[in-house]
Amino acid sequence: MSGPIHQLTAVEIAAGIRARRFSAVEVLADHLARIEAVDPLVNAIVTLDADAALEAARAADRALARGGRGQLGPLLGLPIAVKDLVDTAGLRTTYGSPLFRDHVPQRDALLVQRLRAAGAIVVGKTNTSEFGAGSQTCNAVFGPTRNPFDRARTPGGSSGGAAAAVAARLVPLADGSDLAASVRNPASFCNLVGIRPTPGTIPEDSDAADPWSPFGVSGTFGRTVADAALLLRALAGREAGAPLSALQPLPGDLELRLREPGDGVGVRVAWSRDLGGLPVEPEVLAALEPAREALAAIGCDVRDAEPALAFADEAFDTLRAVMFAAAHGAKVDATPEQVKQTIHWNVARGRALDGAAVARAITLRGRAFHTLREFLQRFDVLALPTSQVVPFPVEVEWPRQVAGAPMEHYVAWLRSCSRITVTGHPAISLPAGFTPSGLPVGLQLVGRHGGDAELLRVAATLERALAERTAREPILYA
Amino acid sequence: MSGPIHQLTAVEIAAGIRARRFSAVEVLADHLARIEAVDPLVNAIVTLDADAALEAARAADRALARGGRGQLGPLLGLPIAVKDLVDTAGLRTTYGSPLFRDHVPQRDALLVQRLRAAGAIVVGKTNTSEFGAGSQTCNAVFGPTRNPFDRARTPGGSSGGAAAAVAARLVPLADGSDLAASVRNPASFCNLVGIRPTPGTIPEDSDAADPWSPFGVSGTFGRTVADAALLLRALAGREAGAPLSALQPLPGDLELRLREPGDGVGVRVAWSRDLGGLPVEPEVLAALEPAREALAAIGCDVRDAEPALAFADEAFDTLRAVMFAAAHGAKVDATPEQVKQTIHWNVARGRALDGAAVARAITLRGRAFHTLREFLQRFDVLALPTSQVVPFPVEVEWPRQVAGAPMEHYVAWLRSCSRITVTGHPAISLPAGFTPSGLPVGLQLVGRHGGDAELLRVAATLERALAERTAREPILYA
Repeated sequence: MSGPIHQLTAVEIAAGIRARRFSAVEVLADHLARIEAVDPLVNAIVTLDADAALEAARAADRALARGGRGQLGPLLGLPIAVKDLVDTAGLRTTYGSPLFRDHVPQRDALLVQRLRAAGAIVVGKTNTSEFGAGSQTCNAVFGPTRNPFDRARTPGGSSGGAAAAVAARLVPLADGSDLAASVRNPASFCNLVGIRPTPGTIPEDSDAADPWSPFGVSGTFGRTVADAALLLRALAGREAGAPLSALQPLPGDLELRLREPGDGVGVRVAWSRDLGGLPVEPEVLAALEPAREALAAIGCDVRDAEPALAFADEAFDTLRAVMFAAAHGAKVDATPEQVKQTIHWNVARGRALDGAAVARAITLRGRAFHTLREFLQRFDVLALPTSQVVPFPVEVEWPRQVAGAPMEHYVAWLRSCSRITVTGHPAISLPAGFTPSGLPVGLQLVGRHGGDAELLRVAATLERALAERTAREPILYA
Repeated sequence: MSGPIHQLTAVEIAAGIRARRFSAVEVLADHLARIEAVDPLVNAIVTLDADAALEAARAADRALARGGRGQLGPLLGLPIAVKDLVDTAGLRTTYGSPLFRDHVPQRDALLVQRLRAAGAIVVGKTNTSEFGAGSQTCNAVFGPTRNPFDRARTPGGSSGGAAAAVAARLVPLADGSDLAASVRNPASFCNLVGIRPTPGTIPEDSDAADPWSPFGVSGTFGRTVADAALLLRALAGREAGAPLSALQPLPGDLELRLREPGDGVGVRVAWSRDLGGLPVEPEVLAALEPAREALAAIGCDVRDAEPALAFADEAFDTLRAVMFAAAHGAKVDATPEQVKQTIHWNVARGRALDGAAVARAITLRGRAFHTLREFLQRFDVLALPTSQVVPFPVEVEWPRQVAGAPMEHYVAWLRSCSRITVTGHPAISLPAGFTPSGLPVGLQLVGRHGGDAELLRVAATLERALAERTAREPILYA
């Protein structure tokens, strides 16, 4: 070993623990020291539970000492921090809301149950936008999270605490959740891999308001495709309380494919600069151009092509507003001053809709699914910018304009992601390079519905082709 | 062989064709003769395609003559009639609407593609309510379908043509579709097995307006559980255009379970007379009581218990209205006089809803799923009346009252089925017996989400226990 443990990938740390090169307690101690030194600079982990984590790490070491490698979880001994939208038994969970400033859940959410069952060590909670609304991570409880690559800027959101934590090497892995862009955008802002899987691949919890909704899904962050996939595998798989959890793909499939990464020959890539005329900042376009060349260089058949999905925006805005009215209407009525303005706006918008508008939105969602499905009969993957902008100053709640075009509302600048959400297809944000001023830029790869394993394989191939361009660390000294 | 082929079950006919006891052409000729003699009495098959059917039967016989049993489809040579809501290439498909009186589709719907791929012989189309709305099969194109057990009465609907055709031995199998009750209610009115599988088990077609909706599903009719399951197996299985098609259950599972029917020992049955106070006609209750005794007699642990699902009615009415507004709003605007009144009513109701109502309905649907899921942790199956009424006169569009209770609207008398629809769980209507005046009564069995195979096994077991009580044929002489 040379260098600290937190510089290793999750896959390397997991292997090192199994090979007894270091103990789970040593891995935890290294990461706790890193958190202590560096988290104050980024404010990514807002609640820490070092004592419980130490106890769990000791239990992991005892399990290792007993042997029985076959029964050891795939995440054994890996420190992880859980998004603060996700319930952790006995550990404060605020949802980024002052209403829940002191809320301590009784039970673990399903995702946390699976983390613990897989052997992960929960060290604490990662910062989020209030109730996950908005792709900038700042709330009235904990303040803003900062981007490890430029602390004057945002890491994106709503899973910005998770992204900043992984990018700053505070934890090797973190979960996130993604409705408009909340895994993909922070991944692109922080030079990380962020997976938004096919809805149902990671089952939603049994308290989901709409268990058939394909909009909001849980996802994973890692510094490599293999790391993010390691966490995805541990979280995937059917659950009785989640009707969309269709074993698609089977966790085993994900593993199999990653063991056999191929070159790009035969992979048909549709390349879209702006998904049909979306405004995209020139720095983003410039940073992605070499990724296109890298794809061609490894043998991919790259063509300019894109599905027509502008109509999906209406479906997104309408169905999102309906969801907000269902989820937050009662809170807005009972304690209006304790709920932020964008949530008021969404709830009011949802309540003002009529049935005809909702019916039209549902039909458009179906059309978006079929439009992209048919498009991906001719291509294996759609490649486009994850974010239309580069990370912006942390004081800015959302960009009022993008490349000169005015933005109508607080999620309008996320169309390159939210249009993909509406289609129900899986997507990965892959580190693609940096702007001349050193800000990360992500490439979004979109695969076939249920084709997560194939998408991961393509992403892993491209990741190697881009490795030189993306191998850059944030500079963080306490 | 004694007696005509149409008296055999589908499983027996399929086996007879494979064993070369009779040819597919002979099977078809026997059923065409039966249709010619008896269909005028019931008006079940509204479009016949004898020439194309004969050609398909000859092709089936050629395939048999070539041998290669392994490649022969599971429905090889079985005559089937397709619900007139489902597109058949080159064969008139009216949706029960005068707007489509002369409509001839260009392509087969996915379900028909699968029927043909499995070797079935499509002989024609079965009557339906206009656009499937309502559980009485009468429309302005073809008039009413009559119940083979009492031709003064309705077979139910909207798949009433399919149910009457199978009950009258016009075809051994038929498909249906079920939103409120449109497979289950006609099955109960016609002494048939009707399966409403878990949403996604039979994939919806790629033109589905809302591919994530768990409300409207395709289902199957047979005179036995094994017959209805034979058709289900042939139609089940993942399809890229259907995101809910989750291989749940795998078609192979369905087969496996049916080969090992057990007795009832260990099966925990929750018995509900009225699903929490729904009005049910005394004749229905009286006819079901012996079914309860039969369950106990084969060793089932039968207890009075039911989930509280009254709140699901609001979700059903609201989301159904939204669906109608999406599917039929344009037609109602363009050609109001060509669309029946109940569809006008539903479209208007959908358009008048506000976003808050839709949001609440979506939340209630989720709650209904979880309520029944949790209930079925204590029981293996919920048993309740399929229909709250016995078959009523064919001139009545819908019952204005049930057991003295006034019905608010044209689907209000179907709550015993529509509440189960909202939960997203699979259900089977099983023949349970007859009223003193000779009208069929069905028992609804509800299983776990994705647990279709287990539900079929329980149904097959109970079917044997009830065989004496339900073995009755309609009396039909031309």
